[in-house]
Amino acid sequence: MTQSIRWGILSTGRIAHQFANGLNDLPDTELVAVGSRSVKNADIFADQFNIPNRYGSYEELVRDPNVDVIYIATPHNLHKDNMIMCLESGKSVLCEKPFTINQQEAKSVIQMARKKKIFLMEAMWTRFLPHIIKVQQMISDGIIGEPRILQASVGFQKQFDPTGRHFNPKLAGGALIDVGIYATTLSYLIFGQPAHIKSFGNLSSAGVDQEGVITFQHENGQLTYFSTTILYHMPRDATIIGSKGSIYIHPDFWHPSQISLRLNNEPERLIEVPCPLNGYHYQVLEVNDCIRQKKEESEIMPLDETLTVLSILDEIRNQWGLKYPME
Amino acid sequence: MTQSIRWGILSTGRIAHQFANGLNDLPDTELVAVGSRSVKNADIFADQFNIPNRYGSYEELVRDPNVDVIYIATPHNLHKDNMIMCLESGKSVLCEKPFTINQQEAKSVIQMARKKKIFLMEAMWTRFLPHIIKVQQMISDGIIGEPRILQASVGFQKQFDPTGRHFNPKLAGGALIDVGIYATTLSYLIFGQPAHIKSFGNLSSAGVDQEGVITFQHENGQLTYFSTTILYHMPRDATIIGSKGSIYIHPDFWHPSQISLRLNNEPERLIEVPCPLNGYHYQVLEVNDCIRQKKEESEIMPLDETLTVLSILDEIRNQWGLKYPME
Repeated sequence: MTQSIRWGILSTGRIAHQFANGLNDLPDTELVAVGSRSVKNADIFADQFNIPNRYGSYEELVRDPNVDVIYIATPHNLHKDNMIMCLESGKSVLCEKPFTINQQEAKSVIQMARKKKIFLMEAMWTRFLPHIIKVQQMISDGIIGEPRILQASVGFQKQFDPTGRHFNPKLAGGALIDVGIYATTLSYLIFGQPAHIKSFGNLSSAGVDQEGVITFQHENGQLTYFSTTILYHMPRDATIIGSKGSIYIHPDFWHPSQISLRLNNEPERLIEVPCPLNGYHYQVLEVNDCIRQKKEESEIMPLDETLTVLSILDEIRNQWGLKYPME
Repeated sequence: MTQSIRWGILSTGRIAHQFANGLNDLPDTELVAVGSRSVKNADIFADQFNIPNRYGSYEELVRDPNVDVIYIATPHNLHKDNMIMCLESGKSVLCEKPFTINQQEAKSVIQMARKKKIFLMEAMWTRFLPHIIKVQQMISDGIIGEPRILQASVGFQKQFDPTGRHFNPKLAGGALIDVGIYATTLSYLIFGQPAHIKSFGNLSSAGVDQEGVITFQHENGQLTYFSTTILYHMPRDATIIGSKGSIYIHPDFWHPSQISLRLNNEPERLIEVPCPLNGYHYQVLEVNDCIRQKKEESEIMPLDETLTVLSILDEIRNQWGLKYPME
């Protein structure tokens, strides 16, 4: 008999809804509790997803003995404290990306999880999607020869709202750590940690990054270049260019339904990479497996990767003079 | 009666063929002479294009009194000396891009032309093509709002040949000044001169740039990012992203037959930008007009633009430690 994994959700925002939708109907997976800052919001959310236990505080949620693992979906600036609260209660944790606002915060949380031997993972959901597995396979099979250059763009036009999470430095706003992290993660996946980073970023008057272009030079000279913004619609595609051809990841490159193989002197080949449900469930399946196998960390999305990607984002923000008020 | 303009071609390589093809059948335009380093090559070329005067040296070509203007199609490293030879003989000049290998060389040639009041222009043919005129019009009409980011890639997979012009530093090889100049020129056209430049370039063991990523930050924060190579096939497209949408320039972005308008929340609109003949003739028409009007410079492709673009390429090469042996 497969052990059922009992989930709690911390916060009831937009991403929490998507996550709950993704989790629905998974085998041996139960959504047993939700915690919000208000009883009312907890009730609305719980009713929508048939969740038995609903709490008007995060503290009550983390104390619920029926919960095995908690998914954290609060704004970036709260992740660290929310994770620590969960870990202190002995709960396993899946935390939305970015894991924390910088590497230093992440280190303290990871240190605690490792000390307490509790499962912890960043919800970098795109790492588990079918297209990424296909791209990794194609690259390791040498289909495009040696991959040399990654080009990507990621961004959305957000309605300006000085108090909203995208524009507010107190909520660790800006484009880079919210969506630029997808291009950074893709680059890391293909080429590893950059050896050198050069970038330009334009900060708003409030001090968050509105737009930027970022370049990496990797150890064997491979190159990454991408842009990121919260002011404009972007192509949101990615191209991995190699000696024998390239892989084009259709928009949105972090959860597309198609990729194209463009081999030199051959017609383009469209490859369907269907993603059932909304894609958020793949990371849940990984967490369930890890918890059942009593792993403290995912091998697919290890905590050292989280630390490295955060150190890259730290370096880029450092080049831009972007420091959040709580740093 | 319209004055017929009599052209001479200096060199008989691949690009000289394309130019001669483009020039064919233009009204009031005559291809009257060709000069090569060998009589044999001059004869073959002249027979192919019905050119009456054929010379086994460049010196004879520039002395031909029947020639009004000379098109120079030699390797990059020879442009400066070839142009000076033409100007000394009082011939107007259209010289292939890159105009010279660096800004310093260009300055000396331009100084001479201005002193002698002789027409001189860089053969940046793409500046005169229908798609560029359309893109400029769309931007100045505000169709995509304020343009903020330009993304482009340019590159080809060249068969490695250490003596060939792409790989040989003595012939001023490498990707940047040969094809990266197209992205640099497009960026200059849209955003003007960059205020800041950051880039990575990988040099071959022979010392030419094999691949690179280049970023510009312009005066009002607008951003350009592009890649360039001679090792791989590249997407070779360009996207200009603005506040209301973006313009996608299909491959090859420097002479496409289609552009796409992608307005926010509207379906993509494909726009045909047919380019009759091979496109090389548009610059010839401009030169003809300028000579007939006794202009010393084109207003569309002024020499100051040539100087500025070369100073950008100089700065990028400087960042890469790429110095040609003749510099």
